[in-house]
Amino acid sequence: MPHDILIATEADLREAVGLDMTTVNTVEAAFAALASGTVVMPPILSMAIEEANGEVDVKTAYIPGFDGFAIKVSPGFFDNPKLGLPSLNGLMILFSAKTGLVEALFLDNGYLTDVRTAAAGAVAAKHLAPERVTTAGVMGTGVQARLQMEAAHLVRPFERVLVWGRDGDKAAACAADIAASLGIEARAEADPARLVADSQLVVTTTPAREPVLRAEWLHPGLHVTAMGSDQGEKNEIDPAALAAANLYVCDRVSQCETLGELRTALKAGIWTGGTPPELGAVVAGHHPGRTSADAVTICDLTGTGAQDTAIATLARRVCSERGAGSTMAV
Amino acid sequence: MPHDILIATEADLREAVGLDMTTVNTVEAAFAALASGTVVMPPILSMAIEEANGEVDVKTAYIPGFDGFAIKVSPGFFDNPKLGLPSLNGLMILFSAKTGLVEALFLDNGYLTDVRTAAAGAVAAKHLAPERVTTAGVMGTGVQARLQMEAAHLVRPFERVLVWGRDGDKAAACAADIAASLGIEARAEADPARLVADSQLVVTTTPAREPVLRAEWLHPGLHVTAMGSDQGEKNEIDPAALAAANLYVCDRVSQCETLGELRTALKAGIWTGGTPPELGAVVAGHHPGRTSADAVTICDLTGTGAQDTAIATLARRVCSERGAGSTMAV
Repeated sequence: MPHDILIATEADLREAVGLDMTTVNTVEAAFAALASGTVVMPPILSMAIEEANGEVDVKTAYIPGFDGFAIKVSPGFFDNPKLGLPSLNGLMILFSAKTGLVEALFLDNGYLTDVRTAAAGAVAAKHLAPERVTTAGVMGTGVQARLQMEAAHLVRPFERVLVWGRDGDKAAACAADIAASLGIEARAEADPARLVADSQLVVTTTPAREPVLRAEWLHPGLHVTAMGSDQGEKNEIDPAALAAANLYVCDRVSQCETLGELRTALKAGIWTGGTPPELGAVVAGHHPGRTSADAVTICDLTGTGAQDTAIATLARRVCSERGAGSTMAV
Repeated sequence: MPHDILIATEADLREAVGLDMTTVNTVEAAFAALASGTVVMPPILSMAIEEANGEVDVKTAYIPGFDGFAIKVSPGFFDNPKLGLPSLNGLMILFSAKTGLVEALFLDNGYLTDVRTAAAGAVAAKHLAPERVTTAGVMGTGVQARLQMEAAHLVRPFERVLVWGRDGDKAAACAADIAASLGIEARAEADPARLVADSQLVVTTTPAREPVLRAEWLHPGLHVTAMGSDQGEKNEIDPAALAAANLYVCDRVSQCETLGELRTALKAGIWTGGTPPELGAVVAGHHPGRTSADAVTICDLTGTGAQDTAIATLARRVCSERGAGSTMAV
């Protein structure tokens, strides 16, 4: 008995789903649900294809109260740029949580992941950054550098952005894009220590394997979100910073232990703080977030299947409302 | 930069991909590749949604020499029949193994899984069943009971089929279907011991949690393929039978230990034969298969991602050749 499914392309989804407070609130709700303990989120399925310098990750999560669950497939093939193709691709599939039937295919080439990843940065900033942020710093110059600043600006309308990257030209281009999209001052900053010193909110968005942010740069009234590490070899933040901060929060402890900043800190024996709180516990009010204007806070984001289920559910609703995408009987 | 993908529905795929020797040979090649040790096949991602009596499994495998890899999502929602819906559904996605780009979506509702599962039964029968099979027995009365007999008949053109099921009416209906599709004698057999005694090839296709085939029923010149167990609670074959057989073969040892018949035998302390050979090793000639007409052999099939990559690659080729399905720029 065929049933209709929705098929939406990247172009459809770029029209329908933006980086706005609706998106941030949806992702925030997913984090709150994660704290309830009733979310089912299996470990990430990961497969490396070494011959092609590629890998593919599959994430999923069931969130009670959401009537669908997403399965997201994210291939990353890092020789693609040589072929004129983007490294990151993929799609999301939304299934009914009642019947398991396919309800929607989002052929988004990773767009929804970009959005939900940036939205998680906004959730972290909302709950952990100082109330007043005048300058935000971003390390890294890629898509997430731009989107993280856009997302954070929704919850902390800062007046200035500093951008650091290994390549000064890319940093300048990134700053120009941010200035244009947010209509604020943005400039490249060649000295990462200076960037951190001048910022109240810093987001690291690099694929670094050696820390780009030193512990000695931490200062009172700073929040750092590290969103670049999502693999067992990556490390953006000096492990000593995790121990030195007043509060270190994971998106998901089990993931941060193996894929995030916590991995390096545990391996170095520097993290002795036991099980860190999760962002969802802070969102849900089960754990305090920032407790003073002077506190130093760090949030480690590795990306969760719960965010995918949240953004896919939102995308389906918006596409339905607007008649976006096409339907197919399968 | 949008690229074209192929989208094929269940109806398209039923036209394009059948249970024939092309399919069996493709799946056999995947097993041979598994034996080479260069296949990358991560553990199955599995998520239970208890509120809906549902589960979802994700399988994948990269096989060197195949230019794509499949990711298969198989939801099983066991209250669906109450809603007039099938329990099993799902889809396969074929990605380029060079770039990770999505190449094809097979919205097959589980059809390709049915075919590749039956094809694995044919591969097992080809390499392990006695040369001469006059009577084949099947335990269970569902889709796989029918397809396993169809598949096995491709490699062992037996003259008669016996069908056992807990429900005699269903067994009779299954036998009638098999007789019609293969044009041979097929009848229900109420006594499972009799069925095994009269058969040279038996395939078990049940979701049983207690053995349906007893060790004392084994007889010289018998091959048994157990394909029903694919979960930690299932068990079709008396664990003593595994130890009593001359040869016990797994599709994938790591899966059979946790999902197949081997699990129960290990738990009961009955299996002391060390690491069993895999079907791929037999196919590739690295391990002997049947060594005499009188041997008793057992093959344990849990279903592998390699089979999915093989059938998806075949489906893409056939759809392209025939212009089946539709294309979409994503």
